[in-house]
Amino acid sequence: MNIENESRDIAALDLGSNSFHMVVAKVIDKDLQIVSRHKQRVHLAAGLDDDKNLSEEAIQRALDCLAMFAERIQDFSPDNVRIAATHTLRQAVNSRTFIERARSVIPFPIEVIAGTEEARLIFLGVAHTQPPSDESMLVVDIGGGSTEMIIGRGFEPLLVNSKQMGCVSYTHRYFANNKLSKKNFAQAILAAQQRLESLAQSYRKASWNIAFGSSGTAKAIKEVLIGLGYEDGLITATRLEKLIERLCEWRTIDEIELDGLNDERKPVFAAGVAIMAAIFQDLHIDEMHFSDGALREGLLYEMEDRFKYSDIRLRITEALADKHAVDLEHAAIVKSYARDFLDQVGATIGIQSESELPALLEWGALLHEVGLNISYQAFHRHSAYILTHTNMAGFNREQQQVLATLARFQRKALKLNEMESFTLFKKKHILGLIRILRLSILVNGQRHEELLPELTLSIQDDAWHLTCEDKNWLENNLLLHADLKTEQQYWDQIGWELVF
Amino acid sequence: MNIENESRDIAALDLGSNSFHMVVAKVIDKDLQIVSRHKQRVHLAAGLDDDKNLSEEAIQRALDCLAMFAERIQDFSPDNVRIAATHTLRQAVNSRTFIERARSVIPFPIEVIAGTEEARLIFLGVAHTQPPSDESMLVVDIGGGSTEMIIGRGFEPLLVNSKQMGCVSYTHRYFANNKLSKKNFAQAILAAQQRLESLAQSYRKASWNIAFGSSGTAKAIKEVLIGLGYEDGLITATRLEKLIERLCEWRTIDEIELDGLNDERKPVFAAGVAIMAAIFQDLHIDEMHFSDGALREGLLYEMEDRFKYSDIRLRITEALADKHAVDLEHAAIVKSYARDFLDQVGATIGIQSESELPALLEWGALLHEVGLNISYQAFHRHSAYILTHTNMAGFNREQQQVLATLARFQRKALKLNEMESFTLFKKKHILGLIRILRLSILVNGQRHEELLPELTLSIQDDAWHLTCEDKNWLENNLLLHADLKTEQQYWDQIGWELVF
Repeated sequence: MNIENESRDIAALDLGSNSFHMVVAKVIDKDLQIVSRHKQRVHLAAGLDDDKNLSEEAIQRALDCLAMFAERIQDFSPDNVRIAATHTLRQAVNSRTFIERARSVIPFPIEVIAGTEEARLIFLGVAHTQPPSDESMLVVDIGGGSTEMIIGRGFEPLLVNSKQMGCVSYTHRYFANNKLSKKNFAQAILAAQQRLESLAQSYRKASWNIAFGSSGTAKAIKEVLIGLGYEDGLITATRLEKLIERLCEWRTIDEIELDGLNDERKPVFAAGVAIMAAIFQDLHIDEMHFSDGALREGLLYEMEDRFKYSDIRLRITEALADKHAVDLEHAAIVKSYARDFLDQVGATIGIQSESELPALLEWGALLHEVGLNISYQAFHRHSAYILTHTNMAGFNREQQQVLATLARFQRKALKLNEMESFTLFKKKHILGLIRILRLSILVNGQRHEELLPELTLSIQDDAWHLTCEDKNWLENNLLLHADLKTEQQYWDQIGWELVF
Repeated sequence: MNIENESRDIAALDLGSNSFHMVVAKVIDKDLQIVSRHKQRVHLAAGLDDDKNLSEEAIQRALDCLAMFAERIQDFSPDNVRIAATHTLRQAVNSRTFIERARSVIPFPIEVIAGTEEARLIFLGVAHTQPPSDESMLVVDIGGGSTEMIIGRGFEPLLVNSKQMGCVSYTHRYFANNKLSKKNFAQAILAAQQRLESLAQSYRKASWNIAFGSSGTAKAIKEVLIGLGYEDGLITATRLEKLIERLCEWRTIDEIELDGLNDERKPVFAAGVAIMAAIFQDLHIDEMHFSDGALREGLLYEMEDRFKYSDIRLRITEALADKHAVDLEHAAIVKSYARDFLDQVGATIGIQSESELPALLEWGALLHEVGLNISYQAFHRHSAYILTHTNMAGFNREQQQVLATLARFQRKALKLNEMESFTLFKKKHILGLIRILRLSILVNGQRHEELLPELTLSIQDDAWHLTCEDKNWLENNLLLHADLKTEQQYWDQIGWELVF
């Protein structure tokens, strides 16, 4: 069988605040061929109450949609499906409950991604659906709950931001009275400008050669403009002004009748136009094209390794280590021990080499000392803080949480009650990685230039055994021996067994 | 009256884990003349229970001592007294209660200082009591609860660390059975080496020309060595070994009889020798001199402006801003507005220009955006985290807490219930600084190159008024107007009034 000629089916799902989307594609040689697109309005954002709880009705709508999508991709292997959830599931306090229930209807992991990660993927989606070019691009994606703005070149995003403003939330806030008044528009535009205030200047400074709008709001504006006679469908500042004037000729939102505007977009159209107008004003945009590519295309293209421009996560972890002045030589030694130990016990604890965990362990080893940049005292906590709160492109929230958890529990007492729970990963695997990283750090505690003798890690009846061919290895290293005893006590306190 | 020829009396108090010290000096022209030294064993560390609560007896002993010291300095002005508390008061969960009670017996502020700040001051104390030299120095100070190790040159500390090991805590841990056995010594030395493990290499790499020991442990070792016939009083590795052998000739600590060792030092002497031996081994020290200077001399010399080598706090804040890639141009503008606003309302809110608060406001303005280095989202919280946990030389804990508090409340809702309390500063002053910093940041929100019109800040009946000669200033700047309205709402939520 000639595997090279086999085609592979992949699918990307985008769980947005307004709609859920699925796109299925075939990878043929080096090409990606879209097979089908699916969209359902789930109105997830509308199901959030004031306490940011998703209502049972909204959860049910979402589950029904996912069940329908699941049918289409039931034979797909997990490697070939990626599901990303955005603003509303970032916001909902009960998003974890939702994700756990979703598991029973769709057997693929759901990743909640940060706003900046969403922005990066949108840029990737747009970049891949445009002809290759070396010009710099501005991409603006106004969603239901958040708006992403990216400047980049090629497949490389340079400025990446996500702001909590979207056509659904702004409709509730500034068009709640349903009126299409100049006053409502002015208030919505001013509010958007307040949001943009802190970053507008940096975008203007960075500048770009071509601007794209992606997703529903930009698409609807383009189609309405075409309906109004602007056949090129370009969005410009003047046309947006005229569009707002035109909209104000109707008294209420329900009354709007415009070619190109469908009934589902109508309720949130005015707010979307207001946000777009604010962005045009503040970023000094002349004209904007619509791009077919968006978040789901970004997910698709990134899934297929051959389309990856480079492994962004490797670059991001290296840049972060550099920014926080990590001792890279030491980190590399710890990393090689961690990798070696994982090779020895990975199978026993059930970690498959093709899973993401080995890479996360390596990145965790590389980054475990970032917190030293704040202070030595309790630096494991500072490392965890930085890894939790930094925007790390290419990582979803749970992957970042794995890095933060490894950093948090790299040393000192194992207060595992402080550990957060995971939905994408098994707890026992994370605990295995914690043990491996701790031992890798511990045996290199003295930062000796000369390497240690070769060590063997094995697991017998849940007890972890660290041994060496040279039976006297600890007699010649009393300090390491003492450190191992201290570590043994930490393990013992939570019922783990370390033998050496 | 010729002020130049007036002498000034200054006093420094050091509230240690074992003893409290006070030293009084006269500043004559450019010289510091020690007038008197006072010492009382308070055994504060012994009063800490397992939950790190200071017992009532220990508090009473400490208050009695402070009352006695207070008599000596009752006529001193607050500018001329500095009181620093170290390890045990860093540790005690009820140290705040103690400090509040201490106020009634001694009318000067007590500063709890971080271990690294203690180390810096010790270095300063030693540097000032040695003949001026350009050689690099290692200083080791083994106290009751912590040990400080510093390498520096001139008055400039370069490597600064404080470790939680001291002659009192190690006596309890490794000599609890009162026995002078080889085994007890070996355990204590190994434990100290574990503590030193992570930094020994960096000290060996940095190297030094001359090593000094300061404070009680080093002094006692020196005097015992002289008693044993080593007339030069130099501490060396060989002599320490011999001293340990000599000590092991007695069965118990109580039985020790050595020339030069007084009864008060005797109970903690063995543990102190063990820690010193561990440091000699790990740092590869050949010989060590005893230095008369220590923490309290550092406090004294720093108090008298004329002896300050340079304003370390300015350098530290600038280095921190640099490390976290702060936009210095913007920070400088915010700082100048803050300073200007403070000049206008400082008197009304009772902040005296000669107090520390104006400087803290300026540093807070310089550093308010350090958290952006982690992420834009909630960066005020990240700034506060960094300012709380970074070792900032020259700042005591509460001063750092002021900077962190200003950063925390620089923007967004004023959740003042999250604000920590202060003992050195009045809450109403801190709240005033918060308002000033917020307004300074807000009016510069758009980061315009051109400056704003001149603004006047005033307070009338608790309402803060921000006004401008140009009555139409806000009509020409709708965005600033909107930002001020948002700010007004934040103030209103906690009962503050902002008028513009």
